[in-house]
Amino acid sequence: MDQAALKQEISNRFGSPCAVIDLDRVEANIAKLQRQCEAAGVANRPHVKTHKSPVLAKMQIEAGASGITCQKLGEAEVMVDGGLDNILISYNLLGAEKMERLGALSRRANISVVADNPVVVEALTEAGRVAGRPINVLVECDTGQERAGVETSGEAVTLAKDIASRPELSFKGFMFYPPVEGWPITQTLYDEARAGLADAGLRAEIVSTGGTPNLVNIGQLDGATEHRSGTSIFNDRMMMDCEAATLNDCALHVYATVVSRAGPERGILDSGSKTLTSDPGGLDGFGHILEHPDARIKGFSEEHGFLDLSACGPKPEVGEIVRVVPNHVCVVVNMMDRLVTVRGNEIIGELPVAARGKIS
Amino acid sequence: MDQAALKQEISNRFGSPCAVIDLDRVEANIAKLQRQCEAAGVANRPHVKTHKSPVLAKMQIEAGASGITCQKLGEAEVMVDGGLDNILISYNLLGAEKMERLGALSRRANISVVADNPVVVEALTEAGRVAGRPINVLVECDTGQERAGVETSGEAVTLAKDIASRPELSFKGFMFYPPVEGWPITQTLYDEARAGLADAGLRAEIVSTGGTPNLVNIGQLDGATEHRSGTSIFNDRMMMDCEAATLNDCALHVYATVVSRAGPERGILDSGSKTLTSDPGGLDGFGHILEHPDARIKGFSEEHGFLDLSACGPKPEVGEIVRVVPNHVCVVVNMMDRLVTVRGNEIIGELPVAARGKIS
Repeated sequence: MDQAALKQEISNRFGSPCAVIDLDRVEANIAKLQRQCEAAGVANRPHVKTHKSPVLAKMQIEAGASGITCQKLGEAEVMVDGGLDNILISYNLLGAEKMERLGALSRRANISVVADNPVVVEALTEAGRVAGRPINVLVECDTGQERAGVETSGEAVTLAKDIASRPELSFKGFMFYPPVEGWPITQTLYDEARAGLADAGLRAEIVSTGGTPNLVNIGQLDGATEHRSGTSIFNDRMMMDCEAATLNDCALHVYATVVSRAGPERGILDSGSKTLTSDPGGLDGFGHILEHPDARIKGFSEEHGFLDLSACGPKPEVGEIVRVVPNHVCVVVNMMDRLVTVRGNEIIGELPVAARGKIS
Repeated sequence: MDQAALKQEISNRFGSPCAVIDLDRVEANIAKLQRQCEAAGVANRPHVKTHKSPVLAKMQIEAGASGITCQKLGEAEVMVDGGLDNILISYNLLGAEKMERLGALSRRANISVVADNPVVVEALTEAGRVAGRPINVLVECDTGQERAGVETSGEAVTLAKDIASRPELSFKGFMFYPPVEGWPITQTLYDEARAGLADAGLRAEIVSTGGTPNLVNIGQLDGATEHRSGTSIFNDRMMMDCEAATLNDCALHVYATVVSRAGPERGILDSGSKTLTSDPGGLDGFGHILEHPDARIKGFSEEHGFLDLSACGPKPEVGEIVRVVPNHVCVVVNMMDRLVTVRGNEIIGELPVAARGKIS
């Protein structure tokens, strides 16, 4: 079928709006990331926060990934249920409920977690007791994001020694998420920490870097053993903006319908913040409409996308189905219970977003 | 138990983060809205987009509401499954898949929909054929929001006549969602449309106004028969900002944990855009922390809330559980699979967010 027929068929079968991924593009993106990691001499540990699907995670493993990254314990549980193993949970976990769950999960699979402070380290010992074996812990280091992570090599080494001194824990290494321009200071911090570790008779088995925009830097940290990239499996307007992807690399489109044209210069898309999310991603407008690149999604209600059509030549009519490349694809996937799969203009089926909404 | 014990117990039982509603406040908010509608002499048709729960919708009906409002067909299906009836779907529906579903739903319950253009009117006739009885249709009118809705009384009357002329449809009236300052022009449009209808031998059985901020105007449209308010059941920072609610009226708090304090003036909350959403609601900061009102949630990653603690006296330590009043509660509820229920400091249980994620 042609593209117009595909859009109509997707609307008829799955309703509108609907998130659609092209498996040809997904496979190409998976293969490209694997090549980039191999060329840089680091293992590929893709971040599943973008797709939240054990099926897609397994495709990444089959392409050569050494393991996966999850941001939440609940995501890791879904992935282990789906048959995945060797999982890094790149987040400070805290609380009795989480320690019980982490301990139980660590009995079923090879799980590593991170810590950036002694309260989290202390808490993790309880998970080790539940697991009946040491919990693998990396020290998260911050080199400019000002998010989580210790800021100095001194703190990193102190925390590493604290972890290594506890029988319920096993020190595994360091996790970095540097800004694109922050790799030189990352190298400095790591070199100092490596020396501090050596003095204490310790070594970092895993040195993890991350970020899809950081694929331009991959391999540039001497000592890095792996890289975590999430968004590259689907890509989005943010990745286009930082030149990590082209429009053709964007594998997920939200198929949406124009449902109102109450003014000559404006219209309403049936996709609002509950579908495309209010995450601006630092960009102008809230998505790129393939059929009308000069239409601007200027804002949202929950179910309304406000279209400014003033710069648009032939303007969309009520009933027209359009495809939107979202600003930030990870948060859009999290709004979906399923992704429809296609190859070119052929419908393949659908995939549940099994780890959607795992906030804890 | 006291409040500190409640927070610990919620974290232990349900994990962190977690959305918690106080049923005492919910009931007070439901009763207040009912009183406001009765005092204004209009029926109460609360909008379920805020809570997405048939259980809470039934509490609204038991308090005196005449029916409910849904924004999406998928929400209405969940509500009918949950035993609700008399439902207005306040949205232009389009597409063969939706007409099949709308027709089927109209066989099971009293459903009304809206239209603001002839393409939608034509499409709805198919639903009428599926239902085997006329579909109730209101004309959506815009009086300043520039969202959906015809802008003139002439268009409104033309569309009303179009609807009334079709055997598969039944013209029911007009739906308005005026800006707070837009009630005088709403009156003008409605008066003209009422006269035009009379000339055509038609009348509007339902004249619906909407919006929680518009409760200050309720009853001020001569001829209005009902009002739709969603957010007032829970309230949020946006409702506080427009003085539709006080902090004490806010019935939903996100219980979150401080998981990192990597710098002296900053911290990380375990709730990012996947929990509190990036919807700024026109406000400074992304939520109000009850325990630290001078802490500012300055931004998000998906799982990280970035805390600026520079203006904060006693700063939260790693592990502290805090309660956040979100900027826009409707979109936060949509991120949740469940809401934990309390009364004061007593845990009652949990409610599934049954109509969460119904994007179509």
